[in-house]
Amino acid sequence: MDHLSLFKAIVAKRSFLCVGLDSEIEKIPSFLLKTKDPVFEFNKRIVDSTSKYAVAYKLNIAFYECNGPSGWKSLGLTLSYIKKNYPGILVIADAKRGDIGNTSKMYARAFFERMNFDAITVAPYMGEDSVTPFLAYKDKWVILLALTSNKGADDFQYHNEDGIRLFERVLTLSRKWGSTDNIMYVVGATRAEMLKEIRKIVPEHFLLVPGVGTQGGSLKEVAKYGLNSKCGLLVNLSRGIIFADNSDSFDKVAGEKAAETQKEMELYLSERNLI
Amino acid sequence: MDHLSLFKAIVAKRSFLCVGLDSEIEKIPSFLLKTKDPVFEFNKRIVDSTSKYAVAYKLNIAFYECNGPSGWKSLGLTLSYIKKNYPGILVIADAKRGDIGNTSKMYARAFFERMNFDAITVAPYMGEDSVTPFLAYKDKWVILLALTSNKGADDFQYHNEDGIRLFERVLTLSRKWGSTDNIMYVVGATRAEMLKEIRKIVPEHFLLVPGVGTQGGSLKEVAKYGLNSKCGLLVNLSRGIIFADNSDSFDKVAGEKAAETQKEMELYLSERNLI
Repeated sequence: MDHLSLFKAIVAKRSFLCVGLDSEIEKIPSFLLKTKDPVFEFNKRIVDSTSKYAVAYKLNIAFYECNGPSGWKSLGLTLSYIKKNYPGILVIADAKRGDIGNTSKMYARAFFERMNFDAITVAPYMGEDSVTPFLAYKDKWVILLALTSNKGADDFQYHNEDGIRLFERVLTLSRKWGSTDNIMYVVGATRAEMLKEIRKIVPEHFLLVPGVGTQGGSLKEVAKYGLNSKCGLLVNLSRGIIFADNSDSFDKVAGEKAAETQKEMELYLSERNLI
Repeated sequence: MDHLSLFKAIVAKRSFLCVGLDSEIEKIPSFLLKTKDPVFEFNKRIVDSTSKYAVAYKLNIAFYECNGPSGWKSLGLTLSYIKKNYPGILVIADAKRGDIGNTSKMYARAFFERMNFDAITVAPYMGEDSVTPFLAYKDKWVILLALTSNKGADDFQYHNEDGIRLFERVLTLSRKWGSTDNIMYVVGATRAEMLKEIRKIVPEHFLLVPGVGTQGGSLKEVAKYGLNSKCGLLVNLSRGIIFADNSDSFDKVAGEKAAETQKEMELYLSERNLI
């Protein structure tokens, strides 16, 4: 899926919502624990109830990896389920991988060949040859960390050489490694005001924005500073949607939360005449 | 294992060798492919033949992850095998993880609770709260990327604010997050001359040094600039040992290569009067 197709999907659903499947086994409704694969069961129902409102799903690998080989099975089943039943939806592996070239190649193989993810988040610390193996795949995306949503972002990402902060250097260098059709950037919603600066460097790239909701970021602010002429935003919500309710109708409530968010997104898209 | 125990293990074996089990299935001797778990079979024989000369094993997670759930099984079996048969040897997950706090906590759980690794490599880009969840475990190590061995290290790691390069800022800030008993740093052997500068900031920390051998780094240079009063070095060799031979006696040849390296290390340790 190139960036125009992604924009078309956004226009069709009037939404730029990405639902984060941070499906921690301790937090899913307890009645699901008697099913064969509780995490997959949970994901399936969340996906069925939110897919009308979401253009992307983000699977945070940590929450699967911590369950060992069976966690990887739940991950694979969830991915296949979305691909089969909702083929137009982008599925992101939030893995934050990155290593020397021959190792990144193995990670790319894991996520893009063995599993059929459309995109993977990558950490930029090790530079170009740690990122480019992921860019060798047609119709796949690298989503590079630029400015993250957590407190620790202050520790290194603002390291400033002659007025250029590290996250700006990441943007400036890496945009040459690929194109607007295969690179996106992670920019935390908790730093929405920085989106103005970031849009000067990458006006056309898609940005994946975590941190709205539980982490305190504002969707309105993100839309204000981040929207571009092709939307250019995927805003991720996880806990605020998937764990909004803990009863037998958890999926219904998740769907309602997703619909609320979609409504708000529709408003911002229409204010900008994008729909 | 604290840093004094690690030093004692080094003195006992007269070696600071870490063997990297980058056990890519395409590269292991083909006659092993008919066994039930070729990667585990390969690792077992490599470990049996090199354990006399090695104080640590490093398992590069990418090479297991790319085989899906069965890869994670090979990884778990290898870890258990080393722990059971060679209990004094440090086992490192070369995973380069790192994410916001609640996610890093899940990764820490995966590698330190579900699996019983002694150490994990972590990428510093996201700062303190992405690293500290790993430091909450007693007798476990974080090995933080500082200056890596690949070409891409030039892209961001030298980003220089008022004379302080990013990798130096990583060292300076992060050494306060833990102690010499639970933090090590990755410093590539291909940048051995930088070890002099690095030792000014972290004189007592252990450094994990990849890049000797296939990547072109010199063990002699690494020892010259990196050794401290408690050795302070773990030098990793992977392909140069584990893939030195492709025949039925691949393990014997790997053992010989490891022994050669140990001999050279013994020389440097004795020149410094550490043994």
